[in-house]
Amino acid sequence: MNSMVSVWTDHELAVAREVFERAHGRAVQALIATVQRQSEQLDSVDALWQLHDFLSIQRHRIEGNFDFRLEGILFVFAGLVKEGLLEPAELQDLDDEKQSKIMAMARF
Amino acid sequence: MNSMVSVWTDHELAVAREVFERAHGRAVQALIATVQRQSEQLDSVDALWQLHDFLSIQRHRIEGNFDFRLEGILFVFAGLVKEGLLEPAELQDLDDEKQSKIMAMARF
Repeated sequence: MNSMVSVWTDHELAVAREVFERAHGRAVQALIATVQRQSEQLDSVDALWQLHDFLSIQRHRIEGNFDFRLEGILFVFAGLVKEGLLEPAELQDLDDEKQSKIMAMARF
Repeated sequence: MNSMVSVWTDHELAVAREVFERAHGRAVQALIATVQRQSEQLDSVDALWQLHDFLSIQRHRIEGNFDFRLEGILFVFAGLVKEGLLEPAELQDLDDEKQSKIMAMARF
């Protein structure tokens, strides 16, 4: 993890926090829309437990993805870019090295 | 559990199975209606996880309640009467002793 250690300016920290919150909001809104669509179609006990299983997985995924700790934040951003929850352009206020690391990790 | 052992006629078995399925259907329909109402009001990540917790509890409750094994079925019926998922009149084809046991347990 040593290569992940970067120096963060106050501005970069503020940008990271803002971008992070925005992506989290998008993930939550997307999940709400999916849950509402699935709920409308509920017609059996199996469908209920499928919705429950789906929520269990999504909760685990979202709580895992949105862990704002600086030592792993570039990796988190890479995952969000990969999932389409962040556009690379939203990261342009981070320095070039951080952006490069994020985009490199987002390719895997 | 020895006092729970009863003799079941074929007719009583058929009635028990039918009443059991009917109460299960009611529980499922009630839960679907509640989930749909809660889903419509989702507006935050906390509300999503509250819905998830609610489904976890209801799944545990329904899967526990609807365990069709004869050695415990009178106890199960008592719980369903207590929860309003079965009317005592629906049990009238069971013999008097079984009905009495169910109603006695339903009072606790």
